[in-house]
Amino acid sequence: MTLSEVGPVLLADLQAPVRDRLLHVEDELRRMIEADLPLINDVNQHLLRMRGKMFRPTLVLLADEATGSVGESADTLAAVLELIHLATLVHDDSVDHSVLRRGMPTINAMFSHQVSVIMGDFLYSRAVVELVRIGDLDALRVIGRVTNDMTVGEMRQLLAHDPLAFSEAQYDLLIRAKTASLISGACEVGALSAPPAERQALARFGDLMGRAFQITDDLLDYTADESTTGKPSGLDLREHKVTLPLIHALPLLHPAERQQVERLMADEAPQEGEIGAVIAAVTAAGGLDYARERAQQLVLEAEAELDVLPATPAREMLRACLAYVLDRRR
Amino acid sequence: MTLSEVGPVLLADLQAPVRDRLLHVEDELRRMIEADLPLINDVNQHLLRMRGKMFRPTLVLLADEATGSVGESADTLAAVLELIHLATLVHDDSVDHSVLRRGMPTINAMFSHQVSVIMGDFLYSRAVVELVRIGDLDALRVIGRVTNDMTVGEMRQLLAHDPLAFSEAQYDLLIRAKTASLISGACEVGALSAPPAERQALARFGDLMGRAFQITDDLLDYTADESTTGKPSGLDLREHKVTLPLIHALPLLHPAERQQVERLMADEAPQEGEIGAVIAAVTAAGGLDYARERAQQLVLEAEAELDVLPATPAREMLRACLAYVLDRRR
Repeated sequence: MTLSEVGPVLLADLQAPVRDRLLHVEDELRRMIEADLPLINDVNQHLLRMRGKMFRPTLVLLADEATGSVGESADTLAAVLELIHLATLVHDDSVDHSVLRRGMPTINAMFSHQVSVIMGDFLYSRAVVELVRIGDLDALRVIGRVTNDMTVGEMRQLLAHDPLAFSEAQYDLLIRAKTASLISGACEVGALSAPPAERQALARFGDLMGRAFQITDDLLDYTADESTTGKPSGLDLREHKVTLPLIHALPLLHPAERQQVERLMADEAPQEGEIGAVIAAVTAAGGLDYARERAQQLVLEAEAELDVLPATPAREMLRACLAYVLDRRR
Repeated sequence: MTLSEVGPVLLADLQAPVRDRLLHVEDELRRMIEADLPLINDVNQHLLRMRGKMFRPTLVLLADEATGSVGESADTLAAVLELIHLATLVHDDSVDHSVLRRGMPTINAMFSHQVSVIMGDFLYSRAVVELVRIGDLDALRVIGRVTNDMTVGEMRQLLAHDPLAFSEAQYDLLIRAKTASLISGACEVGALSAPPAERQALARFGDLMGRAFQITDDLLDYTADESTTGKPSGLDLREHKVTLPLIHALPLLHPAERQQVERLMADEAPQEGEIGAVIAAVTAAGGLDYARERAQQLVLEAEAELDVLPATPAREMLRACLAYVLDRRR
């Protein structure tokens, strides 16, 4: 089966083969974050309610099964990946002063800036404690590198506010560090006991898929409304974040449109109308089409990495993950 | 030699026997935090200028020498301890919205809140990467536990704003988690290859010394002026932080003085006069004397832990560290 034969994919379909294990992963996650302090547990309760669809743990388990693993340690690793993901969400929301995430109040909005900084540190250090507990230095190596890459990505994000100075190459460095590194890490830690060729292929698979994932996410900001993403459309532009559609469109814009972009980027609080005009100009210049093609191309490269794996149902589910990642645009 | 025979101690004296190694530790620290991104290196330059007196690395090296170690790995561990310390300072200043640290602008003041949250994560994840690089799972266990304890301590700090509800036992939990855990961790990772009795004694030594260190620090807030600490006297009270002198004094205050305390704690922006009056009342009720005695008692308990170590110059320097910690009140 090739990717082009995979129809629309629901995450629940991808998760069906590892459903029971995911329940165990959720138990592991709950165990890992529990604390003696009621305030921490209050935050934990909220985090568990707002946690996502467990995409990263699903990748760990599918990579684990696709490389013929057995042990329970992959369940713990899967929970650690979600724990790291939660820690980064908490700090990202604090850095961005976001008030909503998946339609729910963020930790900084519901508790405070203070609580969100400390809780991110709490979650991240718990992840380290768990990896030490299972004595997996190899997983610690991957997780240490990934978490450090993510901080560099966040720092690059802070610098990505000048569309005239921000190139596609810099955007690619940004999304690899910010998003693809953790998705690649999830695929890799699921394959730590596999032959090096399979482990490396899965790491590359995750990197390529993760870049497609972020490009699709950035596209949603141009196309989706609040009911789909849980956040208002055009939020990146409102916050002066430059993403692939704009980077591609910018040299193709008419001078008047280009001035509109520059005005928006200089405007502390851009109006809906300004944002809408820039979205229309970027769309007309082919920025969205280009970003879609780029995501599709990355997904095809990712698919090719799966060839090294034995033909198993888990491998086909990893292939279906690629369709799911692209499909998020609808 | 006993502690009572040790005169006033300068940190430079404590560091003399490990001076050359500390220079190597500084090189290690510089190597660890270097990055490809100019913004990160700008922050690093500022951090290296504002870094402290390398007290925690000194403890690692003294513990290493007092337990008869040899290898260079202790130098790396010493640098990691300073790295963790820097990460916590950066996040603490961000949480507290502090603008000055040791008379220099904080990272949040000089760069931004965003940069400080991300840089703390960058430094902490670099520490994990370094510990994985030297393959020291035992050190990772200590550092993972310590960093998690510190986040719990910071969370307790957020709750320590109601003097009527904050007991000495809770204060002790707070300072153990917030301060003593890292100082204990420094002493312990210097002794990882020592016999368990020595390692455990040094961990307890660090815990006891760390509590005395924080009590002395909290005392300085009641007694020192800006030129000594680099921050204004009474800052904790201004920020409604309840520390040992007030906890001890509160039940001994006259009703009118107690009302003064309650008014200060309810006042968003207390005046100098209000703060001065509470400091005077706490002093008159013996709050400072009690805190001093408590610090001295902890230091004596810490000193007793050194008996298990062989008599070496390094052991005597660890003893002198206790005098240095108490001496900071002047």
